[in-house]
Amino acid sequence: MRSYRKELWFEVPGRRGFLNITSQVESCVRESGIQEGLVLCNAMHITASVFINDDEKGLHQDFERWLEQLAPHEPLTLYQHNNTGEDNGDGHLKRTIMGREVVVAVTAGQLDFGPWEQVFYGEFDGRRRKRVLVKVIGE
Amino acid sequence: MRSYRKELWFEVPGRRGFLNITSQVESCVRESGIQEGLVLCNAMHITASVFINDDEKGLHQDFERWLEQLAPHEPLTLYQHNNTGEDNGDGHLKRTIMGREVVVAVTAGQLDFGPWEQVFYGEFDGRRRKRVLVKVIGE
Amino acid sequence: MRSYRKELWFEVPGRRGFLNITSQVESCVRESGIQEGLVLCNAMHITASVFINDDEKGLHQDFERWLEQLAPHEPLTLYQHNNTGEDNGDGHLKRTIMGREVVVAVTAGQLDFGPWEQVFYGEFDGRRRKRVLVKVIGE
Repeated sequence: MRSYRKELWFEVPGRRGFLNITSQVESCVRESGIQEGLVLCNAMHITASVFINDDEKGLHQDFERWLEQLAPHEPLTLYQHNNTGEDNGDGHLKRTIMGREVVVAVTAGQLDFGPWEQVFYGEFDGRRRKRVLVKVIGE
Repeated sequence: MRSYRKELWFEVPGRRGFLNITSQVESCVRESGIQEGLVLCNAMHITASVFINDDEKGLHQDFERWLEQLAPHEPLTLYQHNNTGEDNGDGHLKRTIMGREVVVAVTAGQLDFGPWEQVFYGEFDGRRRKRVLVKVIGE
Repeated sequence: MRSYRKELWFEVPGRRGFLNITSQVESCVRESGIQEGLVLCNAMHITASVFINDDEKGLHQDFERWLEQLAPHEPLTLYQHNNTGEDNGDGHLKRTIMGREVVVAVTAGQLDFGPWEQVFYGEFDGRRRKRVLVKVIGE
């Protein structure tokens, strides 16, 4: 069995945003040389997500509106967590909805995806450098 | 390390529905001949889910009602995504709640499940053939 | 490829609660002797979760309040599932939000975590002994 590890760094200029990181995850799989296996791709921060969905701007606006409705950023006093001096209580909940990680099959050296699947980094407390871990295992 | 891959195809006649696919995933694990490892089971479409829960009709009705409350299908204009000509904006959000994938341990050649765990395909934009990927790795 | 399996047992005295199980998962990884691979950690019960987030009391209170808002325990008649004689319809939905499982990279014999990542058991129908499965594969 072989394994491969890489950290991908991102800095989203606003508080929230979605980045398509599919090509970077594909590069990791290529670099790993692994033909058959699994790739784990996870946010290393607890106010960020890695998820799979469609690369369509309208959908991303829908996610933004919907997450703000389910776990609004304000009022900050809504969240006990913000009593610690943070203002990212909502970000922890938004990331919970969107998920921490994805596991994707590697087949014939490629991400084994359906027609519209793309990997996104979801940021819910940005304006600083944050990391995603890519770990590939297989042969 | 060995690996195994299979696509399972489903066609849900209505817009939404849940199918118990546990026995099909079990068949994959048997066919793979893998005794110890992991099985990844994921929807290959971004308006569908694979999830684990109880095979109980009332619970499935609860999921249906709850998801419609969290991300209603109508009005279609609620979703920017529907401006692309789609009517499945809600389906992308419902699938996000239910999850894209599950990873299950394979132990002694079996799905390593608790007493009530069953694998379901969750459809949120049906009436067409769609796929689930099963990938098993191990030895 | 090597594999390792262990069941961790928990009994939360109330209906709901969060337990930090990071050190127990770390012990499993150490016991496995696996240096590079993946660890799957999943609830074996369908009204419980394993998830990764911050070990901060205020945040856990935020999760509790938020989950009660999204899927309240009462009235019990809100859930068809409770017609079976159960009173845990809400627990199935809460666990769906929080997730069944996490997959974590194992690197150099350790959980490969960002600075604040901790593993939690989330209980939504407690007052009895329930299990988490830890499965490690790798080399």
